[in-house]
Amino acid sequence: MYRPQIRVLDCTIRDGGLMNNHLFDHNFVRAVYQGLSEAGVDYVELGYKNSKELFSPEEYGTWKFCEDSEIAKITEGIGNGSKISVMVDIGRVKMEDVKPKKESPVDMIRVACYVKDIDKAIAMVNEFHDKGYETTINIMAVSRDQGPELEEGLHQIEGESRADAVYLVDSFGYFYQENVEYLTKLYKGILKTREVGFHGHNNQQLAFGNTIEAIIHGANYLDGTIYGIGRAAGNCPLELLVGFLKNPKFDIRPILDMISTKFVPLREKIEWGYVIPYAIAGMLNEHPRAALALRKTEHKENYREFFESLTNTGLD
Amino acid sequence: MYRPQIRVLDCTIRDGGLMNNHLFDHNFVRAVYQGLSEAGVDYVELGYKNSKELFSPEEYGTWKFCEDSEIAKITEGIGNGSKISVMVDIGRVKMEDVKPKKESPVDMIRVACYVKDIDKAIAMVNEFHDKGYETTINIMAVSRDQGPELEEGLHQIEGESRADAVYLVDSFGYFYQENVEYLTKLYKGILKTREVGFHGHNNQQLAFGNTIEAIIHGANYLDGTIYGIGRAAGNCPLELLVGFLKNPKFDIRPILDMISTKFVPLREKIEWGYVIPYAIAGMLNEHPRAALALRKTEHKENYREFFESLTNTGLD
Repeated sequence: MYRPQIRVLDCTIRDGGLMNNHLFDHNFVRAVYQGLSEAGVDYVELGYKNSKELFSPEEYGTWKFCEDSEIAKITEGIGNGSKISVMVDIGRVKMEDVKPKKESPVDMIRVACYVKDIDKAIAMVNEFHDKGYETTINIMAVSRDQGPELEEGLHQIEGESRADAVYLVDSFGYFYQENVEYLTKLYKGILKTREVGFHGHNNQQLAFGNTIEAIIHGANYLDGTIYGIGRAAGNCPLELLVGFLKNPKFDIRPILDMISTKFVPLREKIEWGYVIPYAIAGMLNEHPRAALALRKTEHKENYREFFESLTNTGLD
Repeated sequence: MYRPQIRVLDCTIRDGGLMNNHLFDHNFVRAVYQGLSEAGVDYVELGYKNSKELFSPEEYGTWKFCEDSEIAKITEGIGNGSKISVMVDIGRVKMEDVKPKKESPVDMIRVACYVKDIDKAIAMVNEFHDKGYETTINIMAVSRDQGPELEEGLHQIEGESRADAVYLVDSFGYFYQENVEYLTKLYKGILKTREVGFHGHNNQQLAFGNTIEAIIHGANYLDGTIYGIGRAAGNCPLELLVGFLKNPKFDIRPILDMISTKFVPLREKIEWGYVIPYAIAGMLNEHPRAALALRKTEHKENYREFFESLTNTGLD
């Protein structure tokens, strides 16, 4: 599949950071940024821009805050590097902390929101756009929040926002290809002047297949992470996505190197990927928090009990 | 997805046996058969029916040969059990070893063949059919052997064979959903009086998604294995398939139990699943044998070198 409009965004450090309180050290992040730049990945997302008044720097690492000065240490001296993205959540960023683009190493700001907060997301992306950034709105949890409110929100984004792209996000790893086809077409049909993106979760080993499905139906902004790292089941494995795309600008080999030397060893320390409680949460359209909690207990391998607790199918 | 014609076949012991020379012990196989029967799985495939003149019983376990007397030890006393399937390869079975169905615990015989051997497969399934068995023809490696020979073979099967079903097999884990859609429609279009089946491999984490795609386009015979066990990258995880199908006869819980107690521990001893050299072989439409060989060497994690060796993209 080769389509010049396609943009690949790697969110290894951002989504992977959800598993370690964003405590990746600078050498690691810089090596990942360099490797992704060599691989031809369009955007690298390093973390969240959160206010230090809301989260403690004692508890969370650098990439929970993504200060411009810290990002500059990553990108400095790396020629022809990938563009830098950061994510913001509604109500967690001080807008005045976001400097004009010309004073910042950040290229793109992605606003994550639920359907109910689309108004707030529009106000935020418009302000970021006016400061000079590329912007996206990533609407989460639409496997639960479909219906008229979602459609109304998409119309509002098309009519009132200056976002470059809008992401379809499968927050719970619930979708299979028929959902992705339906929603990608819905988004494309309403968002006539925007690009559509796709961000999958891999609970049911469908993140890559769903990403292909989104591509087939016109999505051009595609998220992946190295070796699929991310919260719980993780994301679309970047190496599979880059292997699939035939755009000559991509080179899979630096990604393979990083998996060999960094991510196979990291997987021994942090758990992500195909773990049955995450699969169960996905097939039931549930947030992974119960499964994440289970994995910290001595009942971590008691899959039947977990399934029964979510479905009320136990005997008593 | 609920369609009464759907049949699920578990090939955990047969395809998993490719990783341990079919040396599963009887207690293990019996427990698996019992659990799959409780889960409502339609068929359980235990192994290959090979001639002991061709393979040594010193080297290979019981399930390389699948003698009726050994199968009877598995099924004996388990009420309402799944039907039993065995697989045969062209030229590896003595036809006179296959007794009439009424003297055997086997219900179905599946003949695996390449496109070039479809004539031989037809002769074999007709003989098995006449002995009273259900039969399928599983055409392997069609990601390489597409074209007029495949179409001619399908017409021959429709015209000359008594096979109940014909399987589309993604031997190398190369397909994504557009290939599966195209070929399922091709098979269905020619095989008007037969069922179509799908057997995926999970090199690129697409086995489950591809199985869903085959279902969407009319395939009714679906293969899976517990926790995805199988040669190299393995197969479509049965637990995901059963979680997806809404047919009330299925119960995922016995499968979850078996994963907890048997297959998570087994995965510590035998390697299958998402391992990067298998993914590379899949994206390049290659047999996994080079990747399997690599995993037995000290270079097992040298993914770049492996990729370059298959694509001639190294520097020298």
